[in-house]
Amino acid sequence: MAYHGYQGGAQTNYPPPGYQYGNTAPGGFTRGAPSMAHIDPAIQGWFYAVDTDRSGAITANELQKALINGDWSPFDLDTVKLLMNLFDVDHSGAIGINEFAGLWKYIQDWQQVFRQHDRDRSGAIGINEFAAALRGFDLDVPPGLLTIVQWKYASTSGPGRRPELTFDRFMRASVTIRQLSETFQRLDTDRDGWIQINYDEFMKTVLSLP
Amino acid sequence: MAYHGYQGGAQTNYPPPGYQYGNTAPGGFTRGAPSMAHIDPAIQGWFYAVDTDRSGAITANELQKALINGDWSPFDLDTVKLLMNLFDVDHSGAIGINEFAGLWKYIQDWQQVFRQHDRDRSGAIGINEFAAALRGFDLDVPPGLLTIVQWKYASTSGPGRRPELTFDRFMRASVTIRQLSETFQRLDTDRDGWIQINYDEFMKTVLSLP
Repeated sequence: MAYHGYQGGAQTNYPPPGYQYGNTAPGGFTRGAPSMAHIDPAIQGWFYAVDTDRSGAITANELQKALINGDWSPFDLDTVKLLMNLFDVDHSGAIGINEFAGLWKYIQDWQQVFRQHDRDRSGAIGINEFAAALRGFDLDVPPGLLTIVQWKYASTSGPGRRPELTFDRFMRASVTIRQLSETFQRLDTDRDGWIQINYDEFMKTVLSLP
Repeated sequence: MAYHGYQGGAQTNYPPPGYQYGNTAPGGFTRGAPSMAHIDPAIQGWFYAVDTDRSGAITANELQKALINGDWSPFDLDTVKLLMNLFDVDHSGAIGINEFAGLWKYIQDWQQVFRQHDRDRSGAIGINEFAAALRGFDLDVPPGLLTIVQWKYASTSGPGRRPELTFDRFMRASVTIRQLSETFQRLDTDRDGWIQINYDEFMKTVLSLP
């Protein structure tokens, strides 16, 4: 293959075990519609704490208020929407308790990945740690692109300040780059590293990203 | 031309008058490096209020703390970075006072565009208002894409709730869709509505968007 990209092979820690993005297929985490009796009481407790208007479902805005990074900054809305998009499997616009159980586990699994790559235990991922994480996901980002990605997803920046990614942006960056790479691979049917794409599909592909 | 997209022609209110994105060319707003004597004292006052650490330059994080939507929500970081990217013309990683004067005017011009399209004066742009705004910018978004764009950029959503865009996300959505459309047009050298693009350029194009 002539292009860098997701090379397949062993999936070490990405995506977190047991998950497939947007999975509603047999074997997915919502199959069998578990009753609340099967949901960990701790998760039930969290669900009711996040569902502040007691509607029985969690909106993006409620979820955003509940999710905090290691530095106490709130999750950015685009990351919250990424999560909603993955777990609102019945497309109701909100997360029910069964969907929430999956979302909760997903975040926990990603936190584990984050901690594993935050080697200096700063609570944020530096650009070298991020590059290593992408390699760990078998995602080969073209070298010239790392600076762009670093600028785009860093939560902190400024003169003399090391650009770093908080947890929310680390998760969003990883999922977006993976999705982008997979989209290209899907369109590159003859595997020559080039794709042909028309305007509507180009816009749809890009604007569907997290 | 066989594809929808930015059709050129009369630029009614987009981009706000006097601006070109990322413009450092002659005629751009940074030419002549005006001394502080030429900067409106009100803008100087705002600059020093935003520059909370008195460093003489404004970082993305300082700017984010200062920018508030009509509903008192802070600007999202990606919109702040879009602004930094446009106005940090010397690539110092922060905004000096001359750069700030341009940024300030840019936001004011966009606010005018926002108010003009917020026909029901709700302080947020509904999806029909947004579609009308895009048409006003001569940006023709494929019909099937409006739902995706609505989901992606809405600041509020949930069952029974009308998805709406706050000012920050309205500005970011408009700039992103415009940039995307222009990128496609630039790559579509033979104007047949199709482009050929390789992996590296595809990744770079998409990850360089705001």
